[in-house]
Amino acid sequence: MFDIGLIRVLTSSDETLLNAHGALLEKAYPGLRVESRCIPDQPEGIHSPAMEAHAVPKIVELARTAFAHKDMIMVSCAEDPGVPQVRAALPGMPVIGAGEAAAALALKHSERIGIVGITDKAPKAYIRMFGAPLYDAQGERNADASDAGPCTLVANLRPHGVHSTLDLMDDEGHAACLASARALRDKGAGVIALGCTGMATIGIASAMERASGLPVVDPVLAMGAFACFEAAKRRL
Amino acid sequence: MFDIGLIRVLTSSDETLLNAHGALLEKAYPGLRVESRCIPDQPEGIHSPAMEAHAVPKIVELARTAFAHKDMIMVSCAEDPGVPQVRAALPGMPVIGAGEAAAALALKHSERIGIVGITDKAPKAYIRMFGAPLYDAQGERNADASDAGPCTLVANLRPHGVHSTLDLMDDEGHAACLASARALRDKGAGVIALGCTGMATIGIASAMERASGLPVVDPVLAMGAFACFEAAKRRL
Repeated sequence: MFDIGLIRVLTSSDETLLNAHGALLEKAYPGLRVESRCIPDQPEGIHSPAMEAHAVPKIVELARTAFAHKDMIMVSCAEDPGVPQVRAALPGMPVIGAGEAAAALALKHSERIGIVGITDKAPKAYIRMFGAPLYDAQGERNADASDAGPCTLVANLRPHGVHSTLDLMDDEGHAACLASARALRDKGAGVIALGCTGMATIGIASAMERASGLPVVDPVLAMGAFACFEAAKRRL
Repeated sequence: MFDIGLIRVLTSSDETLLNAHGALLEKAYPGLRVESRCIPDQPEGIHSPAMEAHAVPKIVELARTAFAHKDMIMVSCAEDPGVPQVRAALPGMPVIGAGEAAAALALKHSERIGIVGITDKAPKAYIRMFGAPLYDAQGERNADASDAGPCTLVANLRPHGVHSTLDLMDDEGHAACLASARALRDKGAGVIALGCTGMATIGIASAMERASGLPVVDPVLAMGAFACFEAAKRRL
């Protein structure tokens, strides 16, 4: 078994919620064993730069104290908070963030990447890898964007009326997600990556694939593929 | 078990050689089962566009006739020959090429990608995803290249004196590979991807990691990570 320490950035004492991503990974990847911990005092998770700045030292501290003996550490948030800092704090430890994992896997499918998430700005890994989005949320051409590179971030869409993963659970939120997926396809996206790990647990990816005809990459599952890759390297 | 049909583009009746990539994948990823077949009449594999054009219909035919019932098909060549054509011929079948797999995984590590291979031109997936190399093999700035996009192909290096994987087996070839890895690091690469699947079987990746201090992505192992990802999606 390949032992993973998974960091949740949403504080919770509900064991089912805390373990949701870990349980999904263990079901999907039989060779992985996942222990989940959350950082303290972050009841709303991370949805602003100030919240991220507040969370990073706590993420590093949790990685150091609870997970230094693991085979790999996952930061289960599409914004990848604290990922460079954990790498710096624990040299030699494989560390992966959900955003960078999804962004990299998405590129296999197409150089034109669309994001469906719950924030108005694309997670930083997507911007770092692919640049500013070509279109804004209203479908207007973004003046800051350049499509000079071969890879393009088509747009980052927050489905209508959706501000948190809770909004995805009802019929309206679900339908809005599917509409966003189709809108990205119509703007020329060749693949959709989910911009929030909270979307993993509600199984929206496969419904969006059916609605849009495009492959949809889930960030939690994407981290699992990188864990398998790390485990594979050790077995040789 | 997740059943994979693996296509070798080098014709061989030597079972050990034929199964080399499959054996590596099964060792590294315990959940994968790999059946390997090679295309006929391609004794030198593929190392020119004409050879590739000749191989593509044979790759599609092999995929159709031998592997249509598999869970996934791999084309075990960094040039990804026939990958789009196999996708078109077998709708719904997951298909992965070694080049696109390595290129996508490499991006997780860094936006500045270097390649060590056995040809003078980068495999097409790297150019499609990251553009023309910034530097040529002599270390000169490439006039065709643009670093306008966030991702950059730093250079594609063929180690001195190396023209085939056979040249890698002796001490000189091995040392030349390590020198190329260090040269890419010195040009600013943040990750190295191997440009030939024949390099997988000689275990050069870990030696190059030690020599350069950079992560090195092996294309055969990279396909395995995508196979795990496909298998994971089915389990949910």
